[in-house]
Formats: sequence, structure tokens, C-alpha cells
Amino acid sequence: MCRWLAYSGSPIHLETLVSQPHHSLVHQSHSAIECKAATNGDGFGVGWYGAHEDPGVYRDILPAWSDDNLRSLCRQIASSLFFAHVRASTGTATSRANCHPFVAGRWMFMHNGQIGGWDKVRRRVEAMLPDDRYHLRKGSTDSEAIFLTVDEDRLVRDPVGAMRDALVRIRLAMIETGVVEALRFAAALTDGKMLYAFRYASDDRPPTLYWRTVDGNVTVVSEPLDSDRDGWRAVSPNSALAVCPSGEVEPLPFDVENAASLVEGRAA
Amino acid sequence: MCRWLAYSGSPIHLETLVSQPHHSLVHQSHSAIECKAATNGDGFGVGWYGAHEDPGVYRDILPAWSDDNLRSLCRQIASSLFFAHVRASTGTATSRANCHPFVAGRWMFMHNGQIGGWDKVRRRVEAMLPDDRYHLRKGSTDSEAIFLTVDEDRLVRDPVGAMRDALVRIRLAMIETGVVEALRFAAALTDGKMLYAFRYASDDRPPTLYWRTVDGNVTVVSEPLDSDRDGWRAVSPNSALAVCPSGEVEPLPFDVENAASLVEGRAA
Amino acid sequence: MCRWLAYSGSPIHLETLVSQPHHSLVHQSHSAIECKAATNGDGFGVGWYGAHEDPGVYRDILPAWSDDNLRSLCRQIASSLFFAHVRASTGTATSRANCHPFVAGRWMFMHNGQIGGWDKVRRRVEAMLPDDRYHLRKGSTDSEAIFLTVDEDRLVRDPVGAMRDALVRIRLAMIETGVVEALRFAAALTDGKMLYAFRYASDDRPPTLYWRTVDGNVTVVSEPLDSDRDGWRAVSPNSALAVCPSGEVEPLPFDVENAASLVEGRAA
Amino acid sequence: MCRWLAYSGSPIHLETLVSQPHHSLVHQSHSAIECKAATNGDGFGVGWYGAHEDPGVYRDILPAWSDDNLRSLCRQIASSLFFAHVRASTGTATSRANCHPFVAGRWMFMHNGQIGGWDKVRRRVEAMLPDDRYHLRKGSTDSEAIFLTVDEDRLVRDPVGAMRDALVRIRLAMIETGVVEALRFAAALTDGKMLYAFRYASDDRPPTLYWRTVDGNVTVVSEPLDSDRDGWRAVSPNSALAVCPSGEVEPLPFDVENAASLVEGRAA
Repeated sequence: MCRWLAYSGSPIHLETLVSQPHHSLVHQSHSAIECKAATNGDGFGVGWYGAHEDPGVYRDILPAWSDDNLRSLCRQIASSLFFAHVRASTGTATSRANCHPFVAGRWMFMHNGQIGGWDKVRRRVEAMLPDDRYHLRKGSTDSEAIFLTVDEDRLVRDPVGAMRDALVRIRLAMIETGVVEALRFAAALTDGKMLYAFRYASDDRPPTLYWRTVDGNVTVVSEPLDSDRDGWRAVSPNSALAVCPSGEVEPLPFDVENAASLVEGRAA
Repeated sequence: MCRWLAYSGSPIHLETLVSQPHHSLVHQSHSAIECKAATNGDGFGVGWYGAHEDPGVYRDILPAWSDDNLRSLCRQIASSLFFAHVRASTGTATSRANCHPFVAGRWMFMHNGQIGGWDKVRRRVEAMLPDDRYHLRKGSTDSEAIFLTVDEDRLVRDPVGAMRDALVRIRLAMIETGVVEALRFAAALTDGKMLYAFRYASDDRPPTLYWRTVDGNVTVVSEPLDSDRDGWRAVSPNSALAVCPSGEVEPLPFDVENAASLVEGRAA
Repeated sequence: MCRWLAYSGSPIHLETLVSQPHHSLVHQSHSAIECKAATNGDGFGVGWYGAHEDPGVYRDILPAWSDDNLRSLCRQIASSLFFAHVRASTGTATSRANCHPFVAGRWMFMHNGQIGGWDKVRRRVEAMLPDDRYHLRKGSTDSEAIFLTVDEDRLVRDPVGAMRDALVRIRLAMIETGVVEALRFAAALTDGKMLYAFRYASDDRPPTLYWRTVDGNVTVVSEPLDSDRDGWRAVSPNSALAVCPSGEVEPLPFDVENAASLVEGRAA
Repeated sequence: MCRWLAYSGSPIHLETLVSQPHHSLVHQSHSAIECKAATNGDGFGVGWYGAHEDPGVYRDILPAWSDDNLRSLCRQIASSLFFAHVRASTGTATSRANCHPFVAGRWMFMHNGQIGGWDKVRRRVEAMLPDDRYHLRKGSTDSEAIFLTVDEDRLVRDPVGAMRDALVRIRLAMIETGVVEALRFAAALTDGKMLYAFRYASDDRPPTLYWRTVDGNVTVVSEPLDSDRDGWRAVSPNSALAVCPSGEVEPLPFDVENAASLVEGRAA
């Protein structure tokens, strides 16, 4: 279980959210509240959009709380759309390639949760990678694999549908492999303009996810950044958010489980 | 506040104490009980004596819980005298040079605690380093500085006295500088044969320290390695232990505070 | 192109070969002579057999020339069978998971060379991994993939044949994919008792490989460790060496190219 | 001996100089031409001024040629005043704290060269640090020490004079300690507005230093960034450059050696 935040709005310095708030993401790296592991010390990453179509990324293997580079970058870099992530490994190694966010072209993705029984189902999931994304696979995490299984053409036309279908396929592979552990998924996805956030689990324990709008600026987080929790709304389980550059937020259904049942039923 | 363990006895693989027990040192790196910070994720180190007079050392900046090299080394390396340490920084950077244990010739040292007001008193403490040890200063921690201030000739003749006098000098420097924060010191020192452990604080909160003898093998730890705490005895505040290769353990006074008062009084 | 050495013989400290000789492996990390890249600074690794069936491994991402841990470990650890490797990446990232040697159970492997057109052929090669080794895939290198494609049962019965067949399959995948770059392979393999070394290329430029026996102790290297090159013999292209614990060295044919042609011909 | 570049002019992306030119600084990290060590693989750093008075810094211990973060940051970050440095250690450890550039408030500094006999003279040099800069000492390099010995008030009033006097004091300490090795110094210093570059050696082998003006934008480098060397002018030994934000470049005398002789003579 990891912690993350995504921001879309007027340009702000990353530190405004990443390190300055009372319960900032850096604070959550050693003292998370709403997850099983209080410590998220297995690496971190930030990704942001600037002058180019593709985002900048800084990922490293130290705990976020002790990385001077992170502090300096978050103080200097301002962006209107950025991700930040602190990692608690569910088994894979602490390496830069296993740190979020992941990037492919102008798309960026990060994730909290896990594919239950990853070692058993990994081969099937990696076999789902399209040929033109296979070489982008650098690490060994389930999270990177989820992102790369999504076809880019499909992503461009229907991001939420593309992500749902990717999870349906993975869910079916888990069922076929006899995995009993859950698939849990709180994730953020962007093409540098639209921001999508997802909350889903195959059981009744989806990872927490909250969002807040202040002056048209939208922040989505694993857990609220301040203690009073003022203005933070929970994202409903099995739903997604689509956040426009203008600050408009549209809730969308994200019903992986039913879709998987339908497909499975039809196959049966 | 860090966590550490020291072992002297029949040769055993390091993993026997470092990673295998229920509440092993690696376990303490993310879930310490008896210290302010449960997380000791700012680097780690092991040091051991083998075929040579000088010890081997492996120190690195990842949290101990996620370091595959540490796991492999502790499984392979056996020794009759070794140290292991997981670090929670009190302000200085996470770098190999700031990780314990520290080595000078055949001497090895590790520490939990801190010199209060380190930034204010650092210059005076570093000025105490003997000329022939000055070039050994690699990092910026108070712990390394304490070790290097001790004159090696003095160490050879009277290790406990040498360490006490070093702390007395540091304590006086703190007083002269107007530092009000405490000096706290739970440390281990060895020349590859004798093992010395120390517990002291200038206030009434010395860091915890325990020891146990099983079949003539002695282990000294920041906190007991198993939940039943069977056989673990607390080291008395303001005292030291001298552990012989034979397994004999001699408690010794280690009265820094009185000695400092005496010196200070005499100076006044 | 990387540099490596393998040793089988009476127990010696690793430093005897890794760092002490005039043109030691650590020296080769910044000043290799017989390869395109003089600098092999993209990580390193050592692996050795001790008290257990499975080897110890220490791998890290710094250049070998600047790693204090490596220096200390090589000074302390003695072994009768060990590998050491300094890496020059042919495109994949500098991470521990991409550093040699690779270990699976009691088997250990390291490699200099490359699968030409790796990005194009990677999917096919990874598809060759047996189910029970798939979860061992941690990095993204061609070298680790080669090792893991070899079936362990087959390895136990016929190590040289197993390795040859793995390369034949890879060679055929390269041909089918239309890869024109060469497959080059200078590698060492061991089960903790027997040491096997291989030299092969699909073109006429196999990586250099030498071996020497002194007092029944056998060393195999990418390039000789001393300037006078006294006693070093080149391993013939398209051949292998089998080194017994007793020090006996048996040259063996290792004819991947003909075998691949035969299979290809039969298929055509 | 390290390699570095400094830029002052219209805002450009760092990659324009750091990684894109034919003989860019990243290229120099493995293939420097005009220095004893072709490989500058002992860490690197970039520092730049943005929205704040104080600069951003990214320093790390991998060789510059293999660091993906560096590549991404240099692609995204644009600045009108920045430093970049690749390090070849002259003896001190590879750690972030030993990587250039060094920062104190809004001042930034980087260096190629060395204080000869550093281990012998280090104590005297560190004793020169003003009280209010002593706590800024994080590493163990001569370069960081040189920077921190300079009094900040003096820096503000007369940067070139302050730097010269710092070197005079260090030179005298070397002479008094009986050091026969040279003091060599090619360095850049800035307060975020003015850029100063220095070239000096106590013997006749000052490190190389070049500068070029194109369209009012000034670049100062250890060695030219392209093979034709068009427009690059050598900085004269024992001189400094003062570069205004407007692009004006004023050569200045930087005569450490004579000043040191005078002081020494007066003392004799």
C-alpha cells in the first residue's frame, strides 16, 4: 500500500502539496494513517508537466523523508499538473524502475494497491502487453505492468474504458489462475491535460481516495493532507473522476467487477 | 534514536540475530518499540571480525528491511564478534559515511543517542579530534565524532576510562556553549576481542540497553529480540559492561555526569 | 561489454583477484583494455559459495572502483568458488537487479556480451522462461533472461547442453525476428561445485576469454589480470570449459551456430 | 580532476548544454579529453536559479552518463543561470555531500582541481570556516571546504577578492604544513546574478578553462563542448572572469601566488 497525490489547477510549486502541509505526502512517507503500513519508505517519485508534451520525472530509492534532492526540486519546480507518490513495496525490490509514476510518451500513471497473487499471475499479465509497449517494461511491479497493458490508441479514445478493460482482463486472469487474493486499485492517469482518478477493489476493501476543489484547483489524494480534513470528499468505490484543466470534476462509473463477471459468465 | 545489537560468543551467522528473531534488528528497522521513532530507516550497517585484525564493514543508505545485499551477507557471514545497527537520523544526511558502525584500525564503534545542540557544539567537538585521527572523519554525525575524539593510545590502555573522558570533554563543551539539550549515549565499542557497552544520559532518560547470556554467548541490544523478553537484563544507567571473549560480563561504573561536574566545579 | 572473473580452487580471499592484481577486475572497471568500452562503471557484483548450498551475492550500482563496501567484503570473504563482474550497460538501466551475477537456487551465472536487437527479440526470449523460473525475473537485461530461460532439470543433467540449447533457441528467435546484430556470449555458470565457462558469437567476434591454472587453482577472466599475461590461455571460440573442484579443466565444444543452422534448416 | 560548465544568458533548457552537444558534459563524464582522468564517474550535480533567490540543486552518486533523473530534469528545467559538474574524486568518497555544486544561501560554487596534501592540511583549512558557516559542512572534500571558508559579508562586497584571500590563506597553510603538492583551482561562483570564474594554480599547471559568448549568452567550461572548438577562448592562468547578467564579460587579475608570497614574506 502506497500513498500518492495528484494535482490539476493553476501552476503551483510542488512543495505546496508534497512537503509543506501538516500531513503532506512526505509526512505520510513515515506516518501514514489510513493504510496498513504507516511507513511508505520504499522509494518515491514525482512527475510533472512543463514546457514539453512529455512529463519530467524524478524517482529515487531513498525514503521521501530523507531525500534532499526531492526537497530542492519540489521547492523550485512549479506545474499545473503533477503527481507525487511514496512507495510501500508489496514484495518487489526497491529500485528506481519500480517507483511511480510511470511514463509512456505523454501519458503518466501511478497506483496504490496490488494485484493479489502477483507471482502467480504475472506471466499472464505481462503477456497482455502490446508489442509496441513491451520494451517500456523496466521493473517488476504489478503497477507498471497494469499501465503498460493498456493499449495507447484505446487510451487516447476512451481512457476510463481502456483502464477498466485492462483491469477486467487482469481480473479474469487472476480468476483463471485461481488467485484468491484481491485486486485493489487506487490510481491516477493523465495525458498532460485531463486527469483521471480511479478507485476499485475486487473485494469490499478499496484503497482510500479523496479529492478536494479549492478555487478551481483540484487535488486527489490517498489521504487528506491536513488534520481537519476540511472539504475533502471520498471518491466512491468502483468509480472514477475525470478532472478537466478548467477544474470541472465529473464522477464516472468504474465497474470492473461486474464487467469481469459478465465476461466470465459469457465464457462459462 | 537508532537501534543496534552487538554479539560476542561462538561464531554464528549474522542472520541468527540480525534478521531471524521475531523482533530482529531488521524488524526493528520499521517497528521499533522502545524508542520515540518506530522507523529506523535512514541507513544501516554491519561490522564483523573474521580472518584479519580489522573488521569487515557493510553500510548502506536503504532501509535495512529492503536491502537484499544485507540479507545475503547476514546469511553467509559467520563471526564470533559483530555489530549491527539501523539508523534513525537526528538531523544529519542519509549517507554511507553517516552510517554505523565506524571503524578505525581494529577498533569499531556504534551509537544510539545524540549530542544535544550538535550544530552549536560541533566545531568544539571536532576540534578535539587528535591529529592522527582527523583524516578519518568522513561524515557529519555526532556519533562518528565522539568515536574519533578518543585517543587511540588511551583506548588501548583503558577503553572505558577513555570513553568516559571523551564524553566528559564533550559534556563540558556543551555546557560552555550553553546547550540545554541532553547528551544521550548507548554505545558499543570493541577492539576485536573485548566488547564494551555503555549506557548514559546527562538527563534522566538514557537510551534503553539490554543484555543476555545464553550458553556463554553474550548479546547486547537496544531492545530485546523476542517478545517474551526472557533472560534480558537492563544495563543500569550510567554504567558500562565489559564482555570477555570467554563470555564473562563485568558491570562497571560509567559516571560521566559526576566527572563532568567535578571538572566543571574545579574550573569554576 | 562487461568484464568478469571466475575462480575455482583452494579458498582465497576475493581481493586476491578482484582488487589486488596490477590489472585487477576493479582496475578494469575504469581501464579495460580488450573491449570497446574502457569504462565498466554501470554497477558490479560478486557471488561466492560459503557454508550454504546457495551462494552469497553483493551487487551494487556504483562503479566498482569507488565502492568501499566491495573493498571491505573482498578483504574479508574467502571462498573456493566465486564470481566477480563489472558492468558496462548495453542499454538497460543501472540497477541492482540488472547487475551480475544472477542466482537461482544454488546456480549462479554471469555474462559478457549481448543479444543483438534485444528490444525487438525480448518478448520472445522472456516467453521462453519456464513457469517455475518466471517469478525470478527481477530486471530487464538480456543476460538475466538468458540464464532464466534454461530449465533447471536440464541444467542439472547436462549444463553445457542446456546452455547451448538455450542459446540455439534465442538465436532462432533472433533470426525469425529479423535481427541482424550478433549474439555474443562469454559467460560463467556454476552449481557451487563445477564451474563452466563459455565463449561464443554468432559472428566472428566472440568476446575475449582466458584461463590459467596455478597450483591446481583455476581462474577464468575476460582479460588477463597482470601485464605480463604469463600463463594465460585463450579459450577457443565456440567452446566451453568444464572446471572440476580438483582443478581439472576439460575443454568442450560449444557449437551454438551449427546447431541453430541445423534446426533452422530442418524447419525450412 | 572534474569537468564543469556554467551558463549565464537568456533562459535555456539545461540539456542544451549538459547533454545535447557533441562533447557535452555528460559525454565528458566518460570521455573527457583535456584532463588526466578521462572518466568523471564519481557523481555529478546541477544547480540552477528559478523563481527563488536560492538555487535548486540535484546531485547524485551515479555516473552522469547513466542517470535517468538527470536526463529528465535537464530536459524540463530552463534557467538563465546554471551550473553543471561531473566528478572525478581525488580521494574522498562518492556521496551526495561530496558532489558539486555546493550551496550556501543564494551563493553557489563548484570546483575542479585540488588542495594538494589535503589529508595533511585539512584540519587547518576547516579551522578557517567562519562560525556561522561551520554547520553547513556536510562532506569531506577540499572543494566544499574552500567555499565555506569564505566569509559571506566579504563575498557580498568583493567576491573575487574574497575568493583570492581564501586561497591565499589556504596556500599559506599548505606551505606551513610542508605540503609540496600544488593547489589547483578552476572554479565558478555566483550569487544568482553575477557569475565569476577563476583559473589558478600554485605551479604552472592550472586546470583548463574556456569561455564563449554567443548572442550575449556566456558559457564557461572545463573543455569546449564541440569538436571544432569554434569561438572558445582560454581563460588566462591566474585570472578571473566577471560575467554580468547582460552578457558583458570582464577579465580580472586573480593573483593568489604573489599575494601568498607577499604575506609569507612579510611574516618571515
